Amino acid sequence: MANTVETTNLTQWTRLLEQQQEKQLLALLCDAPIIEVAEFLTQQPPQKLLALFTHLPQELQGAIFADFAEEQQLILYQLLNKKDFAQLFGHIPSHQRADFYQQLSDKEQVQLLPYLPKKVREDVITLSAYPPETAGGIMSTDFATVIEDMTVKQAIQKLREDSPSKRMIYYIYVVDKNMQMIGFVSLKDLIMAMPDDKVASFLHENFVYAKINDDREYVAQQVEKYDLVAIPILNEEKQLVGIVRYDDAMDVIRAEETEDMEKFMGIVSNEETSDYLKSSSFQHFKKRVSWILGLFIASILSEIIIHKHEALLGKLTVLALYLPMIAGAGGNAGSQAATVVIRAVSLGQVTLRNWLGVILKEAKVAFLLAFCLFFLAFLKVMILSGNVILENHSTYRLASSIALSLSLQVITSTVVGAALPLIAKYFNGDPAVAASPAITTLVDITGMAIYFSVVVAMLC
Amino acid sequence: MANTVETTNLTQWTRLLEQQQEKQLLALLCDAPIIEVAEFLTQQPPQKLLALFTHLPQELQGAIFADFAEEQQLILYQLLNKKDFAQLFGHIPSHQRADFYQQLSDKEQVQLLPYLPKKVREDVITLSAYPPETAGGIMSTDFATVIEDMTVKQAIQKLREDSPSKRMIYYIYVVDKNMQMIGFVSLKDLIMAMPDDKVASFLHENFVYAKINDDREYVAQQVEKYDLVAIPILNEEKQLVGIVRYDDAMDVIRAEETEDMEKFMGIVSNEETSDYLKSSSFQHFKKRVSWILGLFIASILSEIIIHKHEALLGKLTVLALYLPMIAGAGGNAGSQAATVVIRAVSLGQVTLRNWLGVILKEAKVAFLLAFCLFFLAFLKVMILSGNVILENHSTYRLASSIALSLSLQVITSTVVGAALPLIAKYFNGDPAVAASPAITTLVDITGMAIYFSVVVAMLC
Repeated sequence: MANTVETTNLTQWTRLLEQQQEKQLLALLCDAPIIEVAEFLTQQPPQKLLALFTHLPQELQGAIFADFAEEQQLILYQLLNKKDFAQLFGHIPSHQRADFYQQLSDKEQVQLLPYLPKKVREDVITLSAYPPETAGGIMSTDFATVIEDMTVKQAIQKLREDSPSKRMIYYIYVVDKNMQMIGFVSLKDLIMAMPDDKVASFLHENFVYAKINDDREYVAQQVEKYDLVAIPILNEEKQLVGIVRYDDAMDVIRAEETEDMEKFMGIVSNEETSDYLKSSSFQHFKKRVSWILGLFIASILSEIIIHKHEALLGKLTVLALYLPMIAGAGGNAGSQAATVVIRAVSLGQVTLRNWLGVILKEAKVAFLLAFCLFFLAFLKVMILSGNVILENHSTYRLASSIALSLSLQVITSTVVGAALPLIAKYFNGDPAVAASPAITTLVDITGMAIYFSVVVAMLC
Repeated sequence: MANTVETTNLTQWTRLLEQQQEKQLLALLCDAPIIEVAEFLTQQPPQKLLALFTHLPQELQGAIFADFAEEQQLILYQLLNKKDFAQLFGHIPSHQRADFYQQLSDKEQVQLLPYLPKKVREDVITLSAYPPETAGGIMSTDFATVIEDMTVKQAIQKLREDSPSKRMIYYIYVVDKNMQMIGFVSLKDLIMAMPDDKVASFLHENFVYAKINDDREYVAQQVEKYDLVAIPILNEEKQLVGIVRYDDAMDVIRAEETEDMEKFMGIVSNEETSDYLKSSSFQHFKKRVSWILGLFIASILSEIIIHKHEALLGKLTVLALYLPMIAGAGGNAGSQAATVVIRAVSLGQVTLRNWLGVILKEAKVAFLLAFCLFFLAFLKVMILSGNVILENHSTYRLASSIALSLSLQVITSTVVGAALPLIAKYFNGDPAVAASPAITTLVDITGMAIYFSVVVAMLC
């Protein structure tokens, strides 16, 4: 909905509520986009929320509940008596239902179970058993099936009977008597066909699927690659046990991107607590401390290099002035190269076969950057330290040596930054572990080594 | 398709090709996922590709062409004569067709147009006219419409006539005589209804849409927020002019995330050349150079601070040793904080109203990090520089002053890193412009100021 329309809905509903026109309001809510109804109800105080919510049709209640934030879900769970909640529970889409069930304590789960119909109880227990990072952990059991030798008329009849409770019936899965999947037809196929055609006559037998234990990121990538509305999930006996919809795949892709970005900044991701404000400071601290401390300890290597040249620094204090510049420019150039390469790998633009091409391209980019920086650095040294007098050499030589170190450092750092993600990938790691702080620390070490080597060679 | 199946397809097809069983191969290709057929054909030499491609049904040719990389598309365009290509062109889904058309030179466009049927010609010219970053630029015209007062039977009849050429008919849009959109029904609704029901009886009138000039990122966000398979695009007269599918929305989200990540690393994004290997080194260089040079120049401020204390550094060389450590730890802590905050903002977990909560939380995290780092830094100085003798103070005092500077620097940097994205957001900028290299350079300056203030206060 465009901004204006969305705002209109909210304003209208709020006005009706103020005027106590509940009946009219409920009629409007029934036809509105579910996420907007969920957002509107979230803004109401608990008692008002309960009053409105319980007067909506049960199927809609289930869909709205699925769109509530966890917090809101728990409020409703507390407000409703167990029996009413159990009825609502049966109408929540299966994937979100299992997610909510897992939020409950063991005691609450045991309290709820007896009230549930057998089918719902089995569904929620089965889905909750799969690890959250697998296909099973993100799949839903809302799908429709037909048998191969049905006619179109019979198939449509079966859908009419089965599907009011099913959220998604764009693909209809064709199974045999043992629930083993043999193909699919689309609703479009059914509509296009004549009533007496056999389902088998337009069955797609060559279909894309994922296995129940496949990694959720892989499943999402398949949905994206094949432009699927939903991907069927099969167990080891090739039986159809669930589907993953494109919108759940999108959520996974979002979550994985956050994980990548965090990893790249040396933040340890954990699945459970991903909401910024809901995580405690100590949780945030734990996610970040290991890298910060690890890198702090690793940086001792660059300090040892400086330590070795303390005598030179004492004699030529001006050299200390440019230590942070060498370290900083290297870190920036290296992190940029890593960002570009990690992104290209994750979008599939670059594979390990291209490694030489990538390194050569980055080396060229680095050379251009180094060329520009050489002159700027030379200028900078002449301005800041032009009055320094050396024993055996001119100030120009000092400026040249510093500018040369900087150029070499930028080239080295860029190549290191580009190579690390590829190396991580080669060892089957995630390219994003070539984190920016790690690169920064690593090129600090190479930077100090380059700086003192060049300076000693040119000035001593 | 799971790995194994995908590989099986390719192996089987390659074998059939080697055995010259083209007929059998073509039969298999007709039922396989389109992206796999496209990938298989891409691996063939041009003449083989042409032979296989032209023997496939024309509708399939259009879909496969849409899945080819630009390079492959141009090869086919060169190989086919204009008339054959014009026929194929009519079968490419409209969004990808317009994209390809825009790749052609003005001369090639003019050569192609006369061969196209009027409908296709008008479609491609209209779509090509919209700016690529708007809804119009990413929409497709493959959608099905019905009229409100049709019965279900009539509506299905119309779909049968219209839709073989339409890729997506999960939603059917209901329009009036002027093509103004008045609602939608889903295929599920049609299947569930009885043949003599009126379409109007299950029409969804409260629908989500986007306007033709809306930003493409906004359109994609709407698709994601409302879990839509496709969003209708209306022009200023409320006429239905196109749809944006969920898979095109996913592509937009991916592209925008790349842009964010690049921005964060100080890489200037440009829309045209986003494929890593296809962009020249000079294009990559241009995207990165401005920030690298800008920051290099800005870093002169931290050098001026060091420059002012050169006399102190000459007297107490050991202080130079820890300059890169102060700068480095600040950069890491600040970039981490910025990453976390930018991500929380872009996922909608944090808004400007929460600014104080965010800053306080980050300050707490920083305090915990600073506490740990204090002891490590103290230890490091005692190990590396324990033998340094000061005139008026003990070595413990030296170690304390350096450790204290580091702690203060980490706290300042974290708060700065968290605040910058929020400040950018406050001024309606993209939080990601609070780029990591910018933060690193900024906290270098604060770091040098803190370091020398603390050291002078405690040791002089």
